[in-house]
Amino acid sequence: MNRAGKPPGPDGGQVPPPIPGMPTQHTGQQIKIETRTVPLTTSGNGEMLDITPDASRLLNSVGMVEGQVTMFVPGSTASLTTIEYEPGLKQDFPAAFERIMPRDIPYEHDKMWHDGNGHSHVRASTVGPSLVVPFSGGRLMLGTWQQIVLVDWDNKHRTREVIMQFWGV
Amino acid sequence: MNRAGKPPGPDGGQVPPPIPGMPTQHTGQQIKIETRTVPLTTSGNGEMLDITPDASRLLNSVGMVEGQVTMFVPGSTASLTTIEYEPGLKQDFPAAFERIMPRDIPYEHDKMWHDGNGHSHVRASTVGPSLVVPFSGGRLMLGTWQQIVLVDWDNKHRTREVIMQFWGV
Amino acid sequence: MNRAGKPPGPDGGQVPPPIPGMPTQHTGQQIKIETRTVPLTTSGNGEMLDITPDASRLLNSVGMVEGQVTMFVPGSTASLTTIEYEPGLKQDFPAAFERIMPRDIPYEHDKMWHDGNGHSHVRASTVGPSLVVPFSGGRLMLGTWQQIVLVDWDNKHRTREVIMQFWGV
Repeated sequence: MNRAGKPPGPDGGQVPPPIPGMPTQHTGQQIKIETRTVPLTTSGNGEMLDITPDASRLLNSVGMVEGQVTMFVPGSTASLTTIEYEPGLKQDFPAAFERIMPRDIPYEHDKMWHDGNGHSHVRASTVGPSLVVPFSGGRLMLGTWQQIVLVDWDNKHRTREVIMQFWGV
Repeated sequence: MNRAGKPPGPDGGQVPPPIPGMPTQHTGQQIKIETRTVPLTTSGNGEMLDITPDASRLLNSVGMVEGQVTMFVPGSTASLTTIEYEPGLKQDFPAAFERIMPRDIPYEHDKMWHDGNGHSHVRASTVGPSLVVPFSGGRLMLGTWQQIVLVDWDNKHRTREVIMQFWGV
Repeated sequence: MNRAGKPPGPDGGQVPPPIPGMPTQHTGQQIKIETRTVPLTTSGNGEMLDITPDASRLLNSVGMVEGQVTMFVPGSTASLTTIEYEPGLKQDFPAAFERIMPRDIPYEHDKMWHDGNGHSHVRASTVGPSLVVPFSGGRLMLGTWQQIVLVDWDNKHRTREVIMQFWGV
């Protein structure tokens, strides 16, 4: 997690322009759709998994140059977002939600279903299950210190399948 | 709301793979766009409406097999997200926001406009107005216990029009 | 910010139907993708910038009638959402996050990196970096009082490049 090799410019906001100084346009080619699923195992309890390598690998495999990847996590106790994936924030992000939507307060969900994961549901619905990331020049247009993460809010070990649907040329 | 008929596997994360064990790809067909609006009436105050049946019905009517539906709620006091739509969470989710972004504290918005809905605006902007859900095999790729909801944060009865734009083949 | 000229109907939810009373469909034309970047300068600290005029101007310039714009902010300390962009909420929205995810509490991120912006990261990941807005009839399908905003949560002046990728016919 050494940031000494950090490129010049303001922290976390670097992105290569699609084509330097030029807008891009693809009109002569037919757009393709390719849908993939990424299987994952989590320990729940706010664990975050960096799924950027999966997205990059799949983008390479589908061979698209310009477009977007629509990501979606099926299930109602997990979220997708981006974060600087480093050990500090892997603690800070779930800790922030433990403060505002605590585990150990009464939830109607728990009274009814006895899952003990009412807090997991409200956190998941707040952060949300979908994310769309554009790509250009064959690369995801993320900042240098920005990774795509699955956050598993459930209160136990889970298996997940993240959908990554690639759209482009 | 009986979950006895629940299919095997971990709770809330089931999704049929696009084609079992196989990635899907559609290159020989031209992608279509179809835009629909879903009119709704809400009582506001954090009421959540399950709009999954609307999305499924419209998906059937547009006859697409693979693609995504982009959903968007016009207006600045409502949100779209997913949740397990059951009576407990229908109370828990708005209650969580009442704790963190309470109705009865001063908002500059209310001092200026006297709408009394400053809390509605900050909640709506936190959860967000857009959601993208992929579909494959003619079915929305939701988890078994995951529904798409409109959350109306406004402090009064409202009529809403949710946009559902279908993209696919 | 005078709302006297407000059109009739419920506040904040007006949107022109794609074609009055009719669903829209575009099957005979080939979908295009056009990727643009919008450079911005912010003062950070929860400043919100209205980027609706940029989106509208670019939509006009790409000449599409029906489709969606996928927006994404590279970097891990900023978010995209919609809000009623008026002076009250420009204070209320960051103030709400100062209450729930305060600047002046310990963050592991700050202990490790000494950026002092742990709060910026957790807020950015909560609200999220992506937004998808449909358009029809050549117009973004926003509510009358709903604007698209970049929220810069960082603790200092920043330059940003918001990606706007237009999809449509």
